[in-house]
Amino acid sequence: MYEDLKNQLYEAHLNLEKYGLVAYTSGNVSVRVGSHIIIKPSGVPYDKLKPQDMVVINMQGNVVEGDLKPSVDSATHLYLYNNLDDIGSIIHTHSPYASSFALLNQPLPVYSTAHADVFGVEIPVSPYAPVGTEAIGKAVVDVVNQARAVLLSKHGVIVMGKDIQEAIRNAIFLEEVAKTAYFARTMGNPEPLDKEEAKRLFEFHHKSYGQKK
Amino acid sequence: MYEDLKNQLYEAHLNLEKYGLVAYTSGNVSVRVGSHIIIKPSGVPYDKLKPQDMVVINMQGNVVEGDLKPSVDSATHLYLYNNLDDIGSIIHTHSPYASSFALLNQPLPVYSTAHADVFGVEIPVSPYAPVGTEAIGKAVVDVVNQARAVLLSKHGVIVMGKDIQEAIRNAIFLEEVAKTAYFARTMGNPEPLDKEEAKRLFEFHHKSYGQKK
Amino acid sequence: MYEDLKNQLYEAHLNLEKYGLVAYTSGNVSVRVGSHIIIKPSGVPYDKLKPQDMVVINMQGNVVEGDLKPSVDSATHLYLYNNLDDIGSIIHTHSPYASSFALLNQPLPVYSTAHADVFGVEIPVSPYAPVGTEAIGKAVVDVVNQARAVLLSKHGVIVMGKDIQEAIRNAIFLEEVAKTAYFARTMGNPEPLDKEEAKRLFEFHHKSYGQKK
Amino acid sequence: MYEDLKNQLYEAHLNLEKYGLVAYTSGNVSVRVGSHIIIKPSGVPYDKLKPQDMVVINMQGNVVEGDLKPSVDSATHLYLYNNLDDIGSIIHTHSPYASSFALLNQPLPVYSTAHADVFGVEIPVSPYAPVGTEAIGKAVVDVVNQARAVLLSKHGVIVMGKDIQEAIRNAIFLEEVAKTAYFARTMGNPEPLDKEEAKRLFEFHHKSYGQKK
Repeated sequence: MYEDLKNQLYEAHLNLEKYGLVAYTSGNVSVRVGSHIIIKPSGVPYDKLKPQDMVVINMQGNVVEGDLKPSVDSATHLYLYNNLDDIGSIIHTHSPYASSFALLNQPLPVYSTAHADVFGVEIPVSPYAPVGTEAIGKAVVDVVNQARAVLLSKHGVIVMGKDIQEAIRNAIFLEEVAKTAYFARTMGNPEPLDKEEAKRLFEFHHKSYGQKK
Repeated sequence: MYEDLKNQLYEAHLNLEKYGLVAYTSGNVSVRVGSHIIIKPSGVPYDKLKPQDMVVINMQGNVVEGDLKPSVDSATHLYLYNNLDDIGSIIHTHSPYASSFALLNQPLPVYSTAHADVFGVEIPVSPYAPVGTEAIGKAVVDVVNQARAVLLSKHGVIVMGKDIQEAIRNAIFLEEVAKTAYFARTMGNPEPLDKEEAKRLFEFHHKSYGQKK
Repeated sequence: MYEDLKNQLYEAHLNLEKYGLVAYTSGNVSVRVGSHIIIKPSGVPYDKLKPQDMVVINMQGNVVEGDLKPSVDSATHLYLYNNLDDIGSIIHTHSPYASSFALLNQPLPVYSTAHADVFGVEIPVSPYAPVGTEAIGKAVVDVVNQARAVLLSKHGVIVMGKDIQEAIRNAIFLEEVAKTAYFARTMGNPEPLDKEEAKRLFEFHHKSYGQKK
Repeated sequence: MYEDLKNQLYEAHLNLEKYGLVAYTSGNVSVRVGSHIIIKPSGVPYDKLKPQDMVVINMQGNVVEGDLKPSVDSATHLYLYNNLDDIGSIIHTHSPYASSFALLNQPLPVYSTAHADVFGVEIPVSPYAPVGTEAIGKAVVDVVNQARAVLLSKHGVIVMGKDIQEAIRNAIFLEEVAKTAYFARTMGNPEPLDKEEAKRLFEFHHKSYGQKK
């Protein structure tokens, strides 16, 4: 089932590793297709992972296809798919720069045009919630607003997109934006962009950037 | 058209990625040849980019050859080619260390001989200007003076050279110099080099360094 | 002897290098099998290391098999195997982020759920002890308590596991957790997780994460 | 001439790049053989460099063999070979972490056992001296004392060894040690090791570490 999507999901996981968003076994990407979710198996190291290891589950979290146990974060992914419209792919990582804001319970302000282009608004922090239940999903939905990414208090990040390509792009740019923000913050006091200008850049970027499909 | 230059441009883009100056789809390099500009297509991930994807445009920004849409930063590149003499190649990136100075609206002082060798003067910051119009190009021309690089307020960097090889070298060294400056600045208060000495090093370096063509 | 374990040990060493925990010749991994220890030879650069270079020693530190001299840290490894139950593999590195806490004689608090998941408790610092004798081993045993990792004052880290796979995972995550902690600490004042919650996360993670063997 | 040494020199340059001590064209390694020095050609990018590009010069700096111009730092290398005993190989880089101490005109204290093992003493800073003459060489000789590495004020580092293998090892470990020192310094106030203990560790390490040739 879903051979092409499993390959895309596999490639997305390789990108997580390439850009330093995950280490060894951490992090996971899922994609929604109809009433199924495809997600990384739990605790498999990236250098052992294969496309056919990806696990297909239904919206109740039961395995539909696959020999391996799905990610322990599956409940979080399912809650988000069930409660957010227009989300086709979800990524969870402990990306070091972005997560350092989460460890401080601080949102990531829109310090740069790159942040505005991709996200349009500051990245909010959701309150602390324990892993393995729906609690993280609920906390994310409460704060997500128009952002496509949320910092999880004392934990990591959730990044979303309408499809795998948008989700992986958002995940890579979140860490890139957080890295530059960290450098600026530890050297001085950067001023966030004006909110209207950030919104304008986001709209321009989403209208003008990239190739038409 | 321009097969050799497209290959050089492709190789320059790979160097941007190798040295961490760009991530996924960000950044672009262009080269001027007669009354044409060759530039990266918009939003194509680096691991999918091919030499033949490079887009040829004229000085009015119209596509002369290529199946893909050129970079959204094309207007900035064109303005600079039209208003600065002796520039044959332009690079735009969000290089993290250099951009952190841009987020703080601070120029990058000549803290090191490596900075003096390559640039001779501090890297100025241009005032904030929105992407996609000539505004960034104008802001850069206003401050560029004798520098071959400019920090774009709350955005990133523009680096220039007489050809692709000089531009890519300048882009790599700008980030290298900014990285060391960042480390020094977060650990203490580095003193800039004397301006005359910086100028002398620049002239010595440009006379003595490298192989004669 | 032990061809399969030597291959696993070799792969573990490659992971140390891949994740930046070691440089050139530094660091070592050992594994216990019956009354033998297999360990990296002393001072061999990672790009020259081969599986068959691994040295087999007995619990008195005498070479049982191998043409090369074992790691100078062998005495530390032996002391730990002789004094800690349930340890099947030991890793010693100077992982830069974790070691910076060791240089400050500061434990690494449980700032993140990732830290709690893998370690459950803060990583303690052992008092300064000279290399090459049993002193480091003793200092580690004194402070290790329920942690599977110890920061060595002004030195580096010792990480342990029931087998090679657990030890290497602990070593990679220790540095990942220390990196994010460093970023948070240099940008603000992160609050550690509640001790009970950290313990609960550790137990949940060890019960639920990964694939059953 | 000297095919084997040119290959070793080439491999040493690749290690400089692998460990991030140099970027694009910067940095150089030389080796002394009899009354000849073999050194990197000036300004050749690392991904274009070949073993046969290495330039053989005599102790007066004249090219003995090679089609390319030798490094602009040749005068510095020659001065050091002429004035320091027991030095068979010299490396010059702008390694970012170590150079940040040089930008602050601060020596690198012996914060860690790894520093003591390899260098035994703090890494001194030589006074500012312009490139391309014997001035840098003289400044290094004045401060080098028993250290095998010197920080060049507002510039970079010089690292030495009795042969290429020792020099490259010293260069890699200098940056590794400086990196951990930087992390500790930006997070707190690390205390240097006692001088006698540092000396003892250096002697133990040089007697016990590695394989006998």
